[in-house]
Amino acid sequence: MKDEANIRGGFDGTLRPGDRPALLIVDFQRGFTEIGVSPLASDCDTQVAATNTLIAAMRGRGPVIFTVVSYAANLGDLGCWGQKCSALSTLVRGSKACELDPRLDYQPATDLILHKTQASAFFGTALAGILASNRCDMLIVAGATTSGCVRASVVDAMQYGFPPFVASDCVADRSAPQHASNLIDMSSKYAEVVSSASLLAMLSGSHQSALST
Amino acid sequence: MKDEANIRGGFDGTLRPGDRPALLIVDFQRGFTEIGVSPLASDCDTQVAATNTLIAAMRGRGPVIFTVVSYAANLGDLGCWGQKCSALSTLVRGSKACELDPRLDYQPATDLILHKTQASAFFGTALAGILASNRCDMLIVAGATTSGCVRASVVDAMQYGFPPFVASDCVADRSAPQHASNLIDMSSKYAEVVSSASLLAMLSGSHQSALST
Amino acid sequence: MKDEANIRGGFDGTLRPGDRPALLIVDFQRGFTEIGVSPLASDCDTQVAATNTLIAAMRGRGPVIFTVVSYAANLGDLGCWGQKCSALSTLVRGSKACELDPRLDYQPATDLILHKTQASAFFGTALAGILASNRCDMLIVAGATTSGCVRASVVDAMQYGFPPFVASDCVADRSAPQHASNLIDMSSKYAEVVSSASLLAMLSGSHQSALST
Amino acid sequence: MKDEANIRGGFDGTLRPGDRPALLIVDFQRGFTEIGVSPLASDCDTQVAATNTLIAAMRGRGPVIFTVVSYAANLGDLGCWGQKCSALSTLVRGSKACELDPRLDYQPATDLILHKTQASAFFGTALAGILASNRCDMLIVAGATTSGCVRASVVDAMQYGFPPFVASDCVADRSAPQHASNLIDMSSKYAEVVSSASLLAMLSGSHQSALST
Repeated sequence: MKDEANIRGGFDGTLRPGDRPALLIVDFQRGFTEIGVSPLASDCDTQVAATNTLIAAMRGRGPVIFTVVSYAANLGDLGCWGQKCSALSTLVRGSKACELDPRLDYQPATDLILHKTQASAFFGTALAGILASNRCDMLIVAGATTSGCVRASVVDAMQYGFPPFVASDCVADRSAPQHASNLIDMSSKYAEVVSSASLLAMLSGSHQSALST
Repeated sequence: MKDEANIRGGFDGTLRPGDRPALLIVDFQRGFTEIGVSPLASDCDTQVAATNTLIAAMRGRGPVIFTVVSYAANLGDLGCWGQKCSALSTLVRGSKACELDPRLDYQPATDLILHKTQASAFFGTALAGILASNRCDMLIVAGATTSGCVRASVVDAMQYGFPPFVASDCVADRSAPQHASNLIDMSSKYAEVVSSASLLAMLSGSHQSALST
Repeated sequence: MKDEANIRGGFDGTLRPGDRPALLIVDFQRGFTEIGVSPLASDCDTQVAATNTLIAAMRGRGPVIFTVVSYAANLGDLGCWGQKCSALSTLVRGSKACELDPRLDYQPATDLILHKTQASAFFGTALAGILASNRCDMLIVAGATTSGCVRASVVDAMQYGFPPFVASDCVADRSAPQHASNLIDMSSKYAEVVSSASLLAMLSGSHQSALST
Repeated sequence: MKDEANIRGGFDGTLRPGDRPALLIVDFQRGFTEIGVSPLASDCDTQVAATNTLIAAMRGRGPVIFTVVSYAANLGDLGCWGQKCSALSTLVRGSKACELDPRLDYQPATDLILHKTQASAFFGTALAGILASNRCDMLIVAGATTSGCVRASVVDAMQYGFPPFVASDCVADRSAPQHASNLIDMSSKYAEVVSSASLLAMLSGSHQSALST
């Protein structure tokens, strides 16, 4: 899935999985996953289902963290992004568009929901500190959109020192070509892009003893 | 240049130019612009030349800021990125690969060179504070690579509140398809992607009085 | 109010006020201002009243931003800070301790409430981007505690390029000596520490035309 | 050393040491440690000597990271801080004031020097990513000044999820009262403040096996 020019350019390696994973589920909120709730939505049905298998595998192994894009009703925390995307104004905190997709296996007793206003799950959230204080050393990533908030979060995961592993069948995008090209970029430069089946094997298999704290 | 699915998704707007621009030139260092210095290099000749016209137009109007990727000789500040890209180890601080491309019109009396270790020009640098303390309200972006450090910097520019304007003929990439797809992403979601000619007109034209402090 | 050793050390200057202020009110929530709601609370009555005069003066002049410390009920976003301070566990999102002090003149139509989990109002929030996208060039600071979240926010304001002006009669602390010593530190190194009366004069006086957008 | 009002306020706990420490030495550069090189300097002789014992104990156990404050010769990266402190203009990159104190046991083969422009060692540097990618879970802190860059770095260490341990005899300040009051603040709220002897015992004692990777 890597880009040939980048392999020749020296992007030729593979990230080592860690022993203490966290799972990040980016913006699987109704405004992105339920057609009709917001223009931003696209079909994420199979990705949401596959993400639930990852969530189940993470139980007892590390933090499960959801992000939601949401804004004040007066949109005062939207910054310049609203100039670019009028549909962001549909994501008012407390509205249906900002509810987690109800099909997700969210457990309030253990999981976190982080509200954010920008693309990256690390920007304007406490995510980096949460991962470090939990001594996490890898970040499994699911969510939407591949070419938007997933990509931005993956780049930041690398920058903040948490090697990202993107679950290829758990990320969704409203644009098929941008979905594909961003998987190539992430796989070439910043992340391992692998199936959720591979990640499940990794979580339950040879790394199991290490993963159990 | 926008993606149709994203326009339908509500990414339908245009950023307003500001009155106090800064120019960011990402990683136009010999390791990226001079074939043979590093595997990372690609042909950037026309982009470097076009960038010089932007630099000339910025004189007296706002900060001109160059970034360079560089690492300690022991690579202790490389983080996990070296696992993904063996060629980053060629970018040792003080080496030829970390010199600015000598064709660039860099003026030490006024310009800044920021050293960074990750993709975004904002990550691990003082860039956000420099732009805010100079009261900049737009960021013109040139450099390499389009799909890597330029894209990451553009996303962060939006996040930090400095609307980004990408000079389409001043950004380069070793991969033609990834160059194209990232221009679409940036144009659709985070930035205006325009020619340097348009930016020169903007800098010298109707905004001129506002731009002169 | 400056420290003599620091004046001799070269900390001898004064920040220039800007033309586009924002007002930041740090953690004036019931858990900090209403004795009995949390062990963290201290008497902030006069400070809250004086802060309301600043809020009134800011109407139509720039953003009014409140912060609230709050955590998930499972405390998963508390990081390591809970090891140091057991009382932080009283600040559960949605509880009385996380409500703004009801005496404050908060206007939902225009003002922002930012939730944070750490000391600085900039850490894990979108504050820097909000200030930059509003083109703010100074930050007036009120709130609690002087030696804790106010100090941390003031240091970050300087770092992010927004010169901080602390309203000396609008900041409160449970410890009188730590309150005093932190005003000295901030005044010596990072901020102007002035009375709310002086700030009101600045907001209504010679800077008025500049302040009206 | 804690403040009584803060203990009553719920700041009553103690940080747990981790297994993978890093050592951060803040701004022990000639401009801060050698009287006459800059107005910023103060007597740090005993602190530098004690820091060397910590460095020796860290060999083979985790990263040893030095910070240096330095600016471009044109001071374009100084932000607003220069308005407050004229002496910062003596810290030009490449000058004597920006050399590490030569008495320090700096080993280029393994150690890192991070250049910064603001108070916190985390601000505008890659420090958070370096610590996370090394899986560090505690940060031992030495350097100058206690009330300035040490304090700012300690607050950020807590925020980014790396519990800070301040070596009380390895931190220095030009002001005796501000040194004392900042040790109280840090000890009360953000860090353990302990002697280097205690830290040496911790590094060589019961945690030794855990510390050897």
